[in-house]
Amino acid sequence: MSTNREIHLASRPQGWPTADNFRLVETEVPTPGPGQILVRNQFMSVDPYMRGRMNDVESYVPPFALDAPLDGGAVGEVVASEADGITVGDTVLHGLGWREYALVDARAARPVDPTVAPLTAYLGVLGMTGLTAYAGLLDVAAMKPGDTVFVSGAAGAVGSMVGQIAKLSGAARVIGSAGSPAKVERLRALGFDAAFDYHDGPVRDLLRAAAPDGIDVYFDNVGGEHLEAAIGAMNLHGRAAICGMIAQYNSTEPPAAPRNLALVIGKRLTLRGFLVGDHGHLRDTFVADVAGWLREGRISHDETVVEGIENAPDAFLGMLRGENLGKMLVQV
Amino acid sequence: MSTNREIHLASRPQGWPTADNFRLVETEVPTPGPGQILVRNQFMSVDPYMRGRMNDVESYVPPFALDAPLDGGAVGEVVASEADGITVGDTVLHGLGWREYALVDARAARPVDPTVAPLTAYLGVLGMTGLTAYAGLLDVAAMKPGDTVFVSGAAGAVGSMVGQIAKLSGAARVIGSAGSPAKVERLRALGFDAAFDYHDGPVRDLLRAAAPDGIDVYFDNVGGEHLEAAIGAMNLHGRAAICGMIAQYNSTEPPAAPRNLALVIGKRLTLRGFLVGDHGHLRDTFVADVAGWLREGRISHDETVVEGIENAPDAFLGMLRGENLGKMLVQV
Repeated sequence: MSTNREIHLASRPQGWPTADNFRLVETEVPTPGPGQILVRNQFMSVDPYMRGRMNDVESYVPPFALDAPLDGGAVGEVVASEADGITVGDTVLHGLGWREYALVDARAARPVDPTVAPLTAYLGVLGMTGLTAYAGLLDVAAMKPGDTVFVSGAAGAVGSMVGQIAKLSGAARVIGSAGSPAKVERLRALGFDAAFDYHDGPVRDLLRAAAPDGIDVYFDNVGGEHLEAAIGAMNLHGRAAICGMIAQYNSTEPPAAPRNLALVIGKRLTLRGFLVGDHGHLRDTFVADVAGWLREGRISHDETVVEGIENAPDAFLGMLRGENLGKMLVQV
Repeated sequence: MSTNREIHLASRPQGWPTADNFRLVETEVPTPGPGQILVRNQFMSVDPYMRGRMNDVESYVPPFALDAPLDGGAVGEVVASEADGITVGDTVLHGLGWREYALVDARAARPVDPTVAPLTAYLGVLGMTGLTAYAGLLDVAAMKPGDTVFVSGAAGAVGSMVGQIAKLSGAARVIGSAGSPAKVERLRALGFDAAFDYHDGPVRDLLRAAAPDGIDVYFDNVGGEHLEAAIGAMNLHGRAAICGMIAQYNSTEPPAAPRNLALVIGKRLTLRGFLVGDHGHLRDTFVADVAGWLREGRISHDETVVEGIENAPDAFLGMLRGENLGKMLVQV
């Protein structure tokens, strides 16, 4: 068999990661044992939360190990199988990206049908990304028809889904923030009622102009100034689903915190952090809804695809800098 | 009729209030019109939330007006009535404290039975104070049997109720923080499993020592450093009921905010602000539970009673400095 190439974590980033924190390593392609399958990865997912796992800190998600391959969502073709029910040629979704060949416990792989949707959809719009948006908006933040919804990082994979799902679910007004004029233009094309580039002023002022009657739901991908502005703009009984705080992932100092947090009392606000893994019970409803919207052409999903496992670190670094539009993927 | 004395807001406090912000004013005792009653107040409630209403800021609770009497919970005897169903000699609970005689719309007065419980109980353990503790702990924070519960300001009127209700509702461990050794001793006597004086070190360290296995519920009366420590100590799916932030009510600078707020994501925490007014639907259950515990001698309620309407400002200032044990009341 051919050589396997994989990306290891060479050192833990201090602040912003650099290419030096990663190492391309060649290994032998492994052979599956009983109950295992060998998958030739075709696409892998690159996600902001991976930055947190590069730190060696106590957390409920274990950190990546040094001098070992990173991992994350991937989809590929089964090229060898020692497991019942999975045969060579099947396409499976699993959690061992960042490598060309993955040796996967068959119980940790989920067969997908490549004729129903493009492979990349299983990592994005129909995958973890889509479920994160769907569960965070409709379950965690309990969005109701008529609500005004604000989402930060709105041109990213999760954010762009949040805005569209909000509109399709009856939100009265959807506002997005992003980091460039091109992204803001894209948000308007996706159906956002208002969008702004957060570089254009204090977020508080930009949000007030975009939502003069306040917001009912905030979907947070950014944290920091965005969260403070959202708390300030929230209406009575407002709800925030806290999905990510990318503004502070690379901070080497204690991050800014919302100094207006006392407003949660008088306004009776709820701030709730979540991880998509707790919301698997919504998967069937989610797939039914989103697959339907996709078939009807009512939902768009942007993808930024980088070619080659050797460029996966660059894809990750670019995503942290906001260079992606929509879902960041590597074609392995 | 005799003269009525009432306390006006003379000026808005900048930072810590002083006696100069209040004025004792003599007026004529008013005469009730149709549908009104005249109440001779016997006790009035002094509560931390009143500090916020002394600021002229946009809020969902309107600010106190200058050169007009303050208001707040009070209980007293009806001395004149022009309302059906309420007669002279009845005892009523209403919202117009800070004065000797209150002219009350009969629809805003609730008759209470002074033979069932002492009058002060209707302002404290069986009143708004008790319902705040009950609703915040059991509804907002959804405490379950087996939870470890932390409450700040635990020797105050609400906090001491929270701790006792938690134990009576099956909490595995209840921890309280307070501001003096005497208060800490009182918490232990009330059945708290652990208690500390927050002056004795960083709250984070004191809380970790008191709750080595973490906390599931935090009832916040204090904000600031206490909230940050609680977020740090929270277990997976922990819940905070945010009732007050007395640490910052008199702050003239932007208050400290929890720099560890990103932990809400990985730990899937919920922070929820509340006002007791939203939880009136729990009143019947609350009264049944707490009256039962009182009859059985299973719950204690401390009171600090200051004599004379002229001393109400001092009672309020003392409460902000933490000089009260339990419910702060003025005997009018």
